[in-house]
Amino acid sequence: MTKVCILGAGKVGTHFIKECINNPAIELIQIFNRSQKGIQLYQNSIPTTQSVYELKKADLYLVALPDDVIATLDLNHLKGLVAHTSGTLAFTNLQAQNRAVLYPLQSFSKEKKIHFKKLPLCLETEFEKDYKILREFAYSLSDAVYAIDASKRQKIHLAAVFANNFSNRMMGIAYDLCKEHQIDFEILQPLLQETFLKTQILPPHIAQTGPALRNDQQTIIKHMDQLTGTNKTIYQLITQSIQEKHGTEL
Amino acid sequence: MTKVCILGAGKVGTHFIKECINNPAIELIQIFNRSQKGIQLYQNSIPTTQSVYELKKADLYLVALPDDVIATLDLNHLKGLVAHTSGTLAFTNLQAQNRAVLYPLQSFSKEKKIHFKKLPLCLETEFEKDYKILREFAYSLSDAVYAIDASKRQKIHLAAVFANNFSNRMMGIAYDLCKEHQIDFEILQPLLQETFLKTQILPPHIAQTGPALRNDQQTIIKHMDQLTGTNKTIYQLITQSIQEKHGTEL
Repeated sequence: MTKVCILGAGKVGTHFIKECINNPAIELIQIFNRSQKGIQLYQNSIPTTQSVYELKKADLYLVALPDDVIATLDLNHLKGLVAHTSGTLAFTNLQAQNRAVLYPLQSFSKEKKIHFKKLPLCLETEFEKDYKILREFAYSLSDAVYAIDASKRQKIHLAAVFANNFSNRMMGIAYDLCKEHQIDFEILQPLLQETFLKTQILPPHIAQTGPALRNDQQTIIKHMDQLTGTNKTIYQLITQSIQEKHGTEL
Repeated sequence: MTKVCILGAGKVGTHFIKECINNPAIELIQIFNRSQKGIQLYQNSIPTTQSVYELKKADLYLVALPDDVIATLDLNHLKGLVAHTSGTLAFTNLQAQNRAVLYPLQSFSKEKKIHFKKLPLCLETEFEKDYKILREFAYSLSDAVYAIDASKRQKIHLAAVFANNFSNRMMGIAYDLCKEHQIDFEILQPLLQETFLKTQILPPHIAQTGPALRNDQQTIIKHMDQLTGTNKTIYQLITQSIQEKHGTEL
């Protein structure tokens, strides 16, 4: 059984805390947070602290804190393995003796539970001896455990920004357009469902449809005329991106 | 039972042809296509023609042809209702006596079957008397039938481009990044699944996560450094769009 302290009670930290509490293969022995706010909830069930120097002896310290905070924490006094959850930072950004990364490839929202069993966990340790500890913890949570080095992890994180953050913003613009024109966003749900179902069976370049792909200039011009500001520039730029990808004449 | 001729055997036309063939409430009496290629498949089962002047007498002529072709077809000799399937054109773009629109709000690919029962069909007729014919046909295909005028339909079509075409391109860039760096795109599937599951329960601005939302400049700079060309400009612009939406300081 892995004894673990979780550092951070933000979105990522909270999801891990809840999962570890309910996981019989993991003993969550302490929660650290810089402010008391995030840990009040747990004060009656799990020891909490606001000082890294009060951290208990554990096999693993999981640091789920913002990137700019991770590097500032002095964790050199800890004997156990210290792993951050950042997609972009290297383990060398940690001030600790035994350093590692456990990057969960998912978009964490407070409002929605995550299914950990399928959550991809990307692991990296500074020392080979530590990999076993990290892997045991990871497999207690998920069946999708990968050994991924810093360089690949950074590319995965970048790809994830496009796949999730940016595609979500595209849906957000669609949502805003519907709202602005008193159209129920629900009417787009079958299309959204189809968009996503296609990514499971077809590569995105095969699934691509629309006026940009067809180089339907009449429609493109009509659409551009209906847009202003950043949305207009986005329309133009992603149309260009689709046409560059598909070799359509601009 | 609606007697229908379908004009066009491209992506949209083919999906409607296949659905109408299998639908007991619809009698598909003829298929028109400009080239013989698209209609060869049906020659032994359904009458086909390459001339609009050979079109048989029907209740409804469904024109599933490219926007720039729709306006060029002389259909003035037809007594039945003529409806195009375009998201952007008005019914006035048809050269016909009784004009209408039946816009199916979906992304049609040759490679994937559409579930017509949930397919939103946006209807508009020039004359009120014709609406009943169009509605009867539409409800034979789908439970999601809406009366939508030209102005709203154009906004829906525009929103659909962002929701489907552009979010698909974002997934395409993610796919390309993975491929370029020998990363199996499968690792992103749980994230893609979560992205779309969230749109069913949360508005996109609530589901938004990532470095742009957090205004995590370190990560944004690292990501920008890994990108070139159009992808780099897209990263910058959509980051800006997220920050404008969420009132984050740039």
